[in-house]
Order: sequence, then C-alpha cells, then structure tokens
Amino acid sequence: MIILDGKKYRDELLERYKETISKEKLSLGLSIILIGNNSASEVYVKNKVKYSTYVGINTQIHRLSEDVTLQEVLKLIDKLNSDSSINGIILQSPVPHHIDFDSCIAAISPKKDVDGISASNIFSLYQNKKTILPCTVKGIIKLLEHYNIDIEGKNITIIGRSEIVGKPLALALNNRNATVTLCHSKTKNIKDITSKADILISAVGKANFITNDMVKEGFIGIDVGINHINGRLYGDFNYEEVKDLASYITPVPGGVGPMTIAMIIDNLIELKRME
Amino acid sequence: MIILDGKKYRDELLERYKETISKEKLSLGLSIILIGNNSASEVYVKNKVKYSTYVGINTQIHRLSEDVTLQEVLKLIDKLNSDSSINGIILQSPVPHHIDFDSCIAAISPKKDVDGISASNIFSLYQNKKTILPCTVKGIIKLLEHYNIDIEGKNITIIGRSEIVGKPLALALNNRNATVTLCHSKTKNIKDITSKADILISAVGKANFITNDMVKEGFIGIDVGINHINGRLYGDFNYEEVKDLASYITPVPGGVGPMTIAMIIDNLIELKRME
Repeated sequence: MIILDGKKYRDELLERYKETISKEKLSLGLSIILIGNNSASEVYVKNKVKYSTYVGINTQIHRLSEDVTLQEVLKLIDKLNSDSSINGIILQSPVPHHIDFDSCIAAISPKKDVDGISASNIFSLYQNKKTILPCTVKGIIKLLEHYNIDIEGKNITIIGRSEIVGKPLALALNNRNATVTLCHSKTKNIKDITSKADILISAVGKANFITNDMVKEGFIGIDVGINHINGRLYGDFNYEEVKDLASYITPVPGGVGPMTIAMIIDNLIELKRME
Repeated sequence: MIILDGKKYRDELLERYKETISKEKLSLGLSIILIGNNSASEVYVKNKVKYSTYVGINTQIHRLSEDVTLQEVLKLIDKLNSDSSINGIILQSPVPHHIDFDSCIAAISPKKDVDGISASNIFSLYQNKKTILPCTVKGIIKLLEHYNIDIEGKNITIIGRSEIVGKPLALALNNRNATVTLCHSKTKNIKDITSKADILISAVGKANFITNDMVKEGFIGIDVGINHINGRLYGDFNYEEVKDLASYITPVPGGVGPMTIAMIIDNLIELKRME
C-alpha cells in the first residue's frame, strides 16, 4: 500500500510556485472576503494567507461583519474586479443566510475566479474546454498524476454531489475518460457500487463511513472528508480497516486537504498567465 | 414487458398543448435556423415545423446557404433575440465546419433557448435550479413519469456523453436522486456496468449495441439511438434480444424520438410563461 502524501507534494509544489513567481517576476494579488466569525473559516483563511504569502502572493483579507448587506458585498466584489493588482477573489464559505452566495459568485469576474466555481468556468468544464478547475478537484487530479495513476478507463465512484467537489469532479474525471458513478444520500445498495470501484472518492463528511466491506482489494482511495471529533481530525474512510486493502490511499490529515490549498496558488498563476 | 409508447404519449401531449395555447390565447413564435443542405436535418426541421404549426405556434424557417459567414448567423440571431414575436430560437445542428456552433448558441438569448443548451440553462441544471431542460432529456423524464416509473434511488447507466443528451441527462437524473453512471467509448468492462442498471439508457448511435448479455432481468430500457441502415431505422438496443428481459422498454421508432420533438413545444410554452 502506498500513501498518497498530499502534504509532501504540496510542499514540493509550494517551492516550485515560489521559484516560478520569483523567476518570472509575477506580480500576484489575492483577495479573500471573510464574512462574520466562523471558527473553521478562520482556520482555512489563515492557511490560505500563510501559503499564498509564503510563495510571494500579495494576499489581503477583507473582513466584513455578520450583518453586512448583500449590496455591500457586491460593491466590494465590484471594486476588486476592477482592481488590476488583484488576480483572484475568494469568497470564503459559508456566508450568513441573508447573503446569497450564488449571486456573489456570479458577480466575481470569471477572470478572477480562483476557486473555479463561476458559471462560465463550470460550463467550460462541462464542454471539456480549458477551464479553471475547482481547487479540490484539481488537487485530487494532480495528486493522482503525481503518483502516475492513470485515470482513463478507470471505474471511479464518487460519494457526495456538492457543487464544489462531487459534481465538478464527476465532470472533470469524465473529461479524462474515466467511467464515473456519482453516489449520494439517496443511493441504494451503495456497497455494491463502491466495491466495484477502481478509484473510490468519498466526500460525504461522515467519519468512518467507508468500511472494509465496501471496498475492492487493490482499490485506490481518495478521502475528501474533514470530520472533527473531540478535537481530532478524521476522514470518511475507516482508515485502519481499509488501508491494507488499498493499493494507494490518501491519509487524513495530509492527503487531499493540503493539495486543495496549493491549487489556489496554481489557479492564481494560471489566471495570471491567461490575462 | 410494457412498451413505453412515446408516439402515443406525444400525440396526447400535442392535443393538450393545442388546447392550452388556444384556451390561454398564447401567442407563440418559433424560429428555426437551418444552414446548408443536410438531408437528415431537413427531415428533423420538417417535423419540428409540422408539430409546432399543428398546435398553433407561428413557426418560421430561416434557410441560410452553406457558405454563410459566422457574422451573418450572429446577426440573424441578434435580430431574432430582439423580435418580441419570437419566443424560441433553434439552430439546427450540424452546422458547416466554418461556423462555430458554440458561439452561435452563446449568442441566443437564454430566454429564447428552447433547446435548453445555453450556458446559463446548463449551469442552472448543474445547480439543480429551475431550468429549461434539453428536449431529449425532458422527453425521457416525462415518458418515465407518464408510466409512473420512479427515478429516485434507481441505479441508472447512461451510455454516451454528448452535451445534448448524456451529460445533461446525468445531471438531471442526479437532481432527481438517481445514482448515475456515465459510460462512453473508453469505458472498460461495460457489460459489468450495464448489467447492474435498473434503468439503462443508450445514446451511442450503434445499431444492436445492447445485447441480452448486457442487461439485467427486469431492467427499464431507454433507447436514444437513431441508426439508419438500408432505409430502416434501428435503435441502439438489439430489441428482439433484450425486449423480453425488460420490464419497460422504448421502441425505435416510436419511443424517445417523438417525445423529443414534443418537448420543443413544452419548452416554448414554459419560456413564454417565464417572460
């Protein structure tokens, strides 16, 4: 069994990005909009700032209070869209209920959509044209490629159909000629499906959801789950149970998570080059 | 085995549309742009005109010669976009190589995109929001509903990943809580996948592609194939071989095809109501 070490690869990528940015004298600006006080978001944003700054990206956080109006958020986005020193805009989710997340994303210029979740990016993905991939999707694909794991022709089961992971991942892997099955909470006989998968990707958000009776011997396991229990982080896989059945597997922490954050930087450089 | 009689249901729907349009005094205009001389396109367009006219839609064909420029096509689309008597615009495919189909579709106002293939319609589909469904997708779903076939929780295999059938169908069925596997030419061990499907939908374009060893007893078969061989029309299913294994099955002709054409009218009425 080989561990898909996302943390190690992220660190290699960070050095590579740092060198690229310095050598090519790329001037990169990233704006992160953070609304309210969500402790998980604080951690995510802190890490995004940390790594972006490390590689030489001018990163700024725009903190908005919980009671900000939609209009004020849209006004800020508009300002950032027309600021030529800013190459990427992130609206950290979740946002308060009275703020319509989709309207905000629609307001971000596709040229600054570093998260790859705008309508035009998703439609390009659907059409199998060049696009900015959502960061988790890109992180998973890069990690598989790094370990020389072929995607073409593989039977891949994805569990979880969110708009930032499951659905775009299904499209992206289909574009790479995998045969994709998208499972979710209404899926029946899920074991029958998961146990046929060459590559099993779980983005459910339930600790220990994937047990040893659900996987095929020699499967490749990608665990997107981030489940905090009593101060410890767990993935969706019952790692101890399934690890010996896997040919490759991502650990949690240290697998997909670190890759996702690195892909913000990857996308930002890509956006800059497309300017 | 029950035949999913698309032709019969189409005829019922046509009467219903005709009555609705007449009762509600809906003033509906449909423009079909037909470029060049493709004999298959001629037949499709003729049928679209026939049924649309029958139900009381003012339908016009815009015939453009093979050597029309992209600019001229875009100009026509622009004119139709701003013509308030036109509620729906169809660009009949295929178009000549020098005409970029995607650019033309992007030029059609989403409010007149009766085929449901514009970026904004597809993005709404992706987000599981209200949308104009592509006609074949809507036709299949309506036909299943008409026969009280539940979609939720079903394992559905789709073969063929085109942008007008396979991909939007996968999204639409996922939105209706089916578990969807999308197969294509690079799929390996396809029999293992198709033989597990509760509902098997083939949009491959190969006569007799689906044989009796590829299906599960009691499966529901939806045949989107339109294969002309020696003047006869065949679907993708080897109908004689698989029909007795099916619980429900669409014939070819008389299954999905008639439904698709009826959905143009369904979408046009929907677009009118959204105005």
